[in-house]
Amino acid sequence: MALISKENNFVTLINIFTVEPARQQQLIDLLIRATTTTVGNVPGFISASFHRSFDGTRIAVYAQWSSEEDYQAMRRNPSASSYMDQALALATFELGMYEVVEVLPKLIGSA
Amino acid sequence: MALISKENNFVTLINIFTVEPARQQQLIDLLIRATTTTVGNVPGFISASFHRSFDGTRIAVYAQWSSEEDYQAMRRNPSASSYMDQALALATFELGMYEVVEVLPKLIGSA
Repeated sequence: MALISKENNFVTLINIFTVEPARQQQLIDLLIRATTTTVGNVPGFISASFHRSFDGTRIAVYAQWSSEEDYQAMRRNPSASSYMDQALALATFELGMYEVVEVLPKLIGSA
Repeated sequence: MALISKENNFVTLINIFTVEPARQQQLIDLLIRATTTTVGNVPGFISASFHRSFDGTRIAVYAQWSSEEDYQAMRRNPSASSYMDQALALATFELGMYEVVEVLPKLIGSA
């Protein structure tokens, strides 16, 4: 499980991959393997949530990092970039780096 | 707080708005207002998490719904579409409908 919250101050990376439907599962498998073997073991990694679009054309990865520096250090890691090269052979992608500004509904008045 | 998990079987909508940096805050305010006044009160709405990109050019909304039918019913709601028209005057957007396939790290063996 991953928790979206304003208070944790994580850096959020949202990566939308566009892929041929016939290769969607192959790309998901590759991204999960990259995370379990490399990316997920790097300092500052918090979580990665993998999403498959119903129409087969996209994969969305919602990832949380402690800081932008930790994320950039991972990108310079040769084993991580080797996985990224393999992903780019299957798909194009659009990456954004975000902070959480609000989560609704607010849960007010818990004990 | 919102929870990302495979087990809850929510439908996930990820909406990436592209906006002029000078209008990013205006669009965030509009989207939050749409959610507190209309969208968030519709049957089937679970959560919406609003994210601001560090470079000012994007807003990402990560939303969870009970079912695709509930989400589509909201889109046909006139007050919701009025907010969407206002948002489209400020930004372009790309919407995807997803299911969660994996969340890492897996939390294994909790007490």
